[in-house]
Amino acid sequence: MTSDPKVAPSFAELTRVHARLYRYYHLASIVGWDRNAMMPPGGSEARAAAEAELNALIHRTRTGPRLAEWLRAAEAEPLDAIARANLREMRRDWRDANALPESLVEAKTLAGARCEHAWRSQRPANDWRGFLENFREVVRIAREEARLLAEDTGFSRYDALMDRFEPGVRSQDVDRIFGEVKGWLPDLVERAVAKQGHEEVIVPKGPFPVAAQRALNTEVMTLLGFDFAAGRLDESAHPFSGGVAEDVRLTTRYHESDFARSLLGTIHETGHARYEQNLPRAWLGQPLGTARSYGVHESQSLSFEMQLARGRAFAGLLAPLLKRHFGDQPAFEPDNLHRLMTRVKRGRIRVDADEATYPAHVILRYEIERALIEGEIEADDIPALWDQKMRALLGLDTRGNYQDGCLQDVHWPEGAFGYFPSYTLGAMYAAQWFAAMRRAVPELDARIAAGDLAPVFEWLSANIWSRGCLWETPELVRRASGEALNPQHFRRHLEARYLN
Amino acid sequence: MTSDPKVAPSFAELTRVHARLYRYYHLASIVGWDRNAMMPPGGSEARAAAEAELNALIHRTRTGPRLAEWLRAAEAEPLDAIARANLREMRRDWRDANALPESLVEAKTLAGARCEHAWRSQRPANDWRGFLENFREVVRIAREEARLLAEDTGFSRYDALMDRFEPGVRSQDVDRIFGEVKGWLPDLVERAVAKQGHEEVIVPKGPFPVAAQRALNTEVMTLLGFDFAAGRLDESAHPFSGGVAEDVRLTTRYHESDFARSLLGTIHETGHARYEQNLPRAWLGQPLGTARSYGVHESQSLSFEMQLARGRAFAGLLAPLLKRHFGDQPAFEPDNLHRLMTRVKRGRIRVDADEATYPAHVILRYEIERALIEGEIEADDIPALWDQKMRALLGLDTRGNYQDGCLQDVHWPEGAFGYFPSYTLGAMYAAQWFAAMRRAVPELDARIAAGDLAPVFEWLSANIWSRGCLWETPELVRRASGEALNPQHFRRHLEARYLN
Repeated sequence: MTSDPKVAPSFAELTRVHARLYRYYHLASIVGWDRNAMMPPGGSEARAAAEAELNALIHRTRTGPRLAEWLRAAEAEPLDAIARANLREMRRDWRDANALPESLVEAKTLAGARCEHAWRSQRPANDWRGFLENFREVVRIAREEARLLAEDTGFSRYDALMDRFEPGVRSQDVDRIFGEVKGWLPDLVERAVAKQGHEEVIVPKGPFPVAAQRALNTEVMTLLGFDFAAGRLDESAHPFSGGVAEDVRLTTRYHESDFARSLLGTIHETGHARYEQNLPRAWLGQPLGTARSYGVHESQSLSFEMQLARGRAFAGLLAPLLKRHFGDQPAFEPDNLHRLMTRVKRGRIRVDADEATYPAHVILRYEIERALIEGEIEADDIPALWDQKMRALLGLDTRGNYQDGCLQDVHWPEGAFGYFPSYTLGAMYAAQWFAAMRRAVPELDARIAAGDLAPVFEWLSANIWSRGCLWETPELVRRASGEALNPQHFRRHLEARYLN
Repeated sequence: MTSDPKVAPSFAELTRVHARLYRYYHLASIVGWDRNAMMPPGGSEARAAAEAELNALIHRTRTGPRLAEWLRAAEAEPLDAIARANLREMRRDWRDANALPESLVEAKTLAGARCEHAWRSQRPANDWRGFLENFREVVRIAREEARLLAEDTGFSRYDALMDRFEPGVRSQDVDRIFGEVKGWLPDLVERAVAKQGHEEVIVPKGPFPVAAQRALNTEVMTLLGFDFAAGRLDESAHPFSGGVAEDVRLTTRYHESDFARSLLGTIHETGHARYEQNLPRAWLGQPLGTARSYGVHESQSLSFEMQLARGRAFAGLLAPLLKRHFGDQPAFEPDNLHRLMTRVKRGRIRVDADEATYPAHVILRYEIERALIEGEIEADDIPALWDQKMRALLGLDTRGNYQDGCLQDVHWPEGAFGYFPSYTLGAMYAAQWFAAMRRAVPELDARIAAGDLAPVFEWLSANIWSRGCLWETPELVRRASGEALNPQHFRRHLEARYLN
């Protein structure tokens, strides 16, 4: 990275600011992990004050008075391609932090907090009318936010929101891709459910002691290449992947009656973790050295959980580990294990959905939130649209059932519009990575079955992990897989797993 | 606390700065705890950078350009006694942060780090000559530091260093007190050792599984009033009490062959913890709401460990707990337990010393370091003085044995002069607290024996914990116990425990 302060003084100033920000984020990330995984309740008030102070400091740093001038000057400085990519990400960060007036940021925080807080009791009470009262204000502010970001970027309003989560991806592409998926998904789900109706599945018998589950998870994480010298596994009420690239903190939650939930959750988080643990070391401390996007991050967790761990080859690796930690039982036979991990069931709840029905939940939300932000519909229109789309995509009636319908997610109450597509983009990227991997390593599944996961890690490392933010997402996809995002890989993956 | 910004605008500015500092210290304390108790080795480099950034921020805040002006102006503002005490502590903090020129702080850090780093291998190699090469520079800088602090405070050079650890205590007092102790301590130790030579002590038989020790420690901490809703017990290589007043983080270290070390260490740290957990809530966030001093802090850990837990009454409470967690054995009989916890043995190593011989180790160091800082001796003179004083106080020959002599502590290599007296002042304060407590609650020992520790906690809370930094140490001692620090209480405590 050319950052010789003599020839590129403004760029050098910017790298200094971002190095400082990186260290602030380190502090924020570790105390945030601590709050969720370690802190006793008595610490919460003082912690909230300390974290707010740090966030204010971070905001002041990202909106520093000289940044705009340095960004402008750095554009004209002699920079190599890598430094230029870093500069692009610096500008993105600056735009994110500076696009909105202070008053709007405050109004957004306030409205989101009020709506989310009320939503916690309105959801169980199925109270859509009550929710609407707060939600209309959240939508109003989100539209204003989208308008300002759109002016700033030249994107459409919804695209301006989505670009913060998936840089370079536009709704025109998402429309085309999700449109295609809508064409074949309902039939595929129908056939998968029908086929599985004839299969016999043995359910594992618990209890599964927490200590044994912890040992199993640790062993599987090790098998998946997690570096315990640069990370930890702990417990929290809501599992997450936190910490910093140099020290990744995963959490899980144990249920003695069900080991699979914690195990698959841990495998999912391990995918996120390996991305972080293998970001390019030379670029750490700069925007260039961070993970590309929410969708690409999700493609790593889904590569581990969906593509790898729920595959038939991996079930053969898992079986002996389960026997060793929990004792032998018929349910641990590899074919049965694989069947257990690939059940398809149409349901109303997104977070409980399997990989085949999940896209339906996302497409529905994407279509509604885009129309909402672009001003084509109003908040009041959501339940009818929700029901209509749920019926078309999954054949489910959701009339009057708001709590398992449009009230189920925290994203909208919080004002997080533009995020939902990342989940399904991530699933599609993951399928596309594995298709490319199979072209490069034709014997891939045999090697996985033999316990040799190196080809998976090597491909992901070379094509995704080591790239950081060098390219925007579409370019990363093309470079990694030889083509733009192509939902046919995801379709073929689902067909191979659920219809053959 | 009068801090109406209309009548005391400068004081109000100062409280804002200190509220911000408090939140920064919160972050520093939690990530510091994490580094010692949780962080995998791979995180250390990034963590060091993040902590250095935060420390630089804290230093900039403590040396902010307007602080001097605000401090001066606040002196003339109408403040009540409590606000005035807070202002006194603000000035102390400002002086600590600003007394030394940047260049001296840097030179001190550098020399201390170099000397300490080399000392780690020089100590096991018994290499006094090699140590001296770095140590002379540490002494030179410490003397310069003492000279500048003395100019600033009007104290003697050594007193200026000591005042940072024990506000208000002067070497004139320490000389008188330690001089008195030197008069009776060698004889007392002699008689205690002779008496114990006739006693039979049964040593507990291990191993003591870590899980059982952890459960025992947790139960004893609960008995001692530790609030687990506002703190945690974890493990680290070097046990410490960290975190923040609202969320105290203790650590211990387990040895399967010896439960007593971890148990008594945990009790010691619980004393520190209860002080922090019971600092005045209304003053938290300001200097006034922090613990008074290192010596007073140590008086709390020693109140718990030495005065309370190693007493005969407490052994009766401990015995059934040990039986429950480790199974019954003759060593757990209360009289035997008490004997085990009160062995006196003259040794060369301070950190292994019992409460009777410990003051000898401290007095020796105090006399040497004070003479060194005042320029009455040179670093080269230390080994001969060390040997002479060890002989006089404990009858031990240390000639040529530097590693168990003047090379044994990390304090001097790091340049921390003026700290050692706090250990023994703490032990004496603790004895004086318990003497006052027994006057107030004549049936104290019977109540402890009956498992009622409330009188201990109530006295400490009313007289020490709730006082924060309202007074300097000598005033706190007078208010709490009705007299100035009086080593006779410590003497009577030792005589009662070891000679009767």
